[in-house]
Amino acid sequence: MTGFGAFSAGGSAPRIGWRDGGEVVDLSALGDVYAQQSLNALLALGRDAWADALAAARTHDGPRIPLADATLRLPFEVADYVDFYSSLEHATNMGRIFRPGTDPLPPSWRSMPLGYHGRAGTVVVSGTDVVRPHGQLKPADAEAPVFAPSRRLDFELELGFVVGVASRGEPVSPERFADHVFGVVLVNDWSARDIQAWESVPLGPFLGKSFQTSISPWVTPLALLEEYRVEAPAQDPPPLPYLSGGRDWALDLALEVALNGSVVSRGNARTLYWTMPQQLAHATSNGAALRTGDLMASGTISGAVRGSEGSLIELTRNGTEPLRLADGSERTFLEDGDEVVLRGRAGDVELGEVRGRVVDSGLLAY
Amino acid sequence: MTGFGAFSAGGSAPRIGWRDGGEVVDLSALGDVYAQQSLNALLALGRDAWADALAAARTHDGPRIPLADATLRLPFEVADYVDFYSSLEHATNMGRIFRPGTDPLPPSWRSMPLGYHGRAGTVVVSGTDVVRPHGQLKPADAEAPVFAPSRRLDFELELGFVVGVASRGEPVSPERFADHVFGVVLVNDWSARDIQAWESVPLGPFLGKSFQTSISPWVTPLALLEEYRVEAPAQDPPPLPYLSGGRDWALDLALEVALNGSVVSRGNARTLYWTMPQQLAHATSNGAALRTGDLMASGTISGAVRGSEGSLIELTRNGTEPLRLADGSERTFLEDGDEVVLRGRAGDVELGEVRGRVVDSGLLAY
Repeated sequence: MTGFGAFSAGGSAPRIGWRDGGEVVDLSALGDVYAQQSLNALLALGRDAWADALAAARTHDGPRIPLADATLRLPFEVADYVDFYSSLEHATNMGRIFRPGTDPLPPSWRSMPLGYHGRAGTVVVSGTDVVRPHGQLKPADAEAPVFAPSRRLDFELELGFVVGVASRGEPVSPERFADHVFGVVLVNDWSARDIQAWESVPLGPFLGKSFQTSISPWVTPLALLEEYRVEAPAQDPPPLPYLSGGRDWALDLALEVALNGSVVSRGNARTLYWTMPQQLAHATSNGAALRTGDLMASGTISGAVRGSEGSLIELTRNGTEPLRLADGSERTFLEDGDEVVLRGRAGDVELGEVRGRVVDSGLLAY
Repeated sequence: MTGFGAFSAGGSAPRIGWRDGGEVVDLSALGDVYAQQSLNALLALGRDAWADALAAARTHDGPRIPLADATLRLPFEVADYVDFYSSLEHATNMGRIFRPGTDPLPPSWRSMPLGYHGRAGTVVVSGTDVVRPHGQLKPADAEAPVFAPSRRLDFELELGFVVGVASRGEPVSPERFADHVFGVVLVNDWSARDIQAWESVPLGPFLGKSFQTSISPWVTPLALLEEYRVEAPAQDPPPLPYLSGGRDWALDLALEVALNGSVVSRGNARTLYWTMPQQLAHATSNGAALRTGDLMASGTISGAVRGSEGSLIELTRNGTEPLRLADGSERTFLEDGDEVVLRGRAGDVELGEVRGRVVDSGLLAY
């Protein structure tokens, strides 16, 4: 694995490190920007400085800490968090489940990368337990909603990008994507499907998502992914001019989800219909400012073949076809104690994994 | 007007001030917490310290700066921004406009305060111009969407509350509202109705709102509003237990919107169906953490009588009944050059007004 992150070890102050296999290289001797509790200072410096940082990190002769001895922090302070809905296969699957009998794709889905704002304050680093959320649910056979622990807790396999260079009111065209974006992380956008289903009309997801989102401890710089850029799937109809660039920014990035050690999903980020530069161009097309630390995620990445879906609701056909795990047990949605791990790899470049275990919410007082 | 804010004057460093009529009392001599560029340090201190701060501010013999000589800043750094949909009359009006022929209230509307996350990074202080956003729109007579300046730019009159004391995974019951919340601001959640209409299914509002949200420069402490607390309108059906408190937290707060000097809306915050404590309890019911600086707004406040609606789309019946302004001109939606001012008053306590002027986006390069 490789990438920049923030860590502490042996009681040290937080600092910036470079992940190199099973070790973390302490970069704090490289200067003030590296003696920080998050990557934000480095993120703000821009593309030339990022290239210098990458060269320095890969050759720096600093202390090497075994990963087991490092406490990994959230790698950057998240400014705003936007979650898109960029996978054609995922959007189609979700439409079939949540709006049966209608065209599964929303009317504007092929015209632009739909998205919404998530809760930045509950983005956490890999390894953080996820507490099963309570919420309002309306079971199919109930007349009125109840307040109860979610019974349909799910993961979502996503790819996120991290904004380094801010902007103030200027749209960022797809061609300028790499001037603003530092790198990528894997994202698990944990979802309580029963809470989400009852709350989402007409304002979209809220408490079904806002309890927690987990990301990689390591941000992989875009520069390391250059050679894995491929052309994205053809778009029909062709997008409007402000979204017409950035089609050469699909990533040939193999993805997998392991549940209690069993790999339950295998996909690839290259299947995404809307690319990251298109997502950023859309998010700024109304003049919205960007801040250092903005996180924008793809939405669940699902492929066209069975077993490539990036969420349990899709993999189990809304819970009707349970998965069988290696230990012989079956799953529709997540049970307490379950551990989910997201992994991504492009050639030799492995993204930071995202690990999280489900714990019950018995200790919360209501 | 009255409240705490952040300002600079005569080239000074930013500092905390207390608004007293037409002057700002410089509080920076009161200690480090007041020699800051935002209220966040004060917000984090909690309820006892807030009471002390209020007593100190009202009696402090510091320098008094005429308002005209002060540069007002965004009063606090916004952590996450949540926008609710708490007015029964507004939700009903919007349902009739956007989903004609169906029950205007969404299925779960009476069960909980629906909401969504907005863009924290584009919350700005009163006085900031709003640039007319571009975006994807689909005119009624068009076969395909176009990318163009919004033709249906609107204001939204809202009341927001500001979280001071953070929480980590514990639901905040309605009874504990005032332990976490420092005070209130007026909010203009500018909305591009044409962008919003084309993008909102199924993920809710995104670019139709994210270009800008304007708030008061002065945060009015809850303590000053105690005597204006009234019982909220009856709820049918009764809410679930976790939402059953906080009904004595409606505010008898007279509201108005002026457009180019003509008052076009007069209402009262006491008409809101869901109260602020219910909003906060709901937002934290899934265990979502709160951070100092979280802003939660009511959603548009509309009353039951004609002329009390808090947005142009409602006041003009979706543009079919133009308003006539004092200068003889007519308006359906906002035109370039228009100035909108939101005001709120509870007895002698006047909230900080929210002022904004619409400017065209001719200078943006696409």
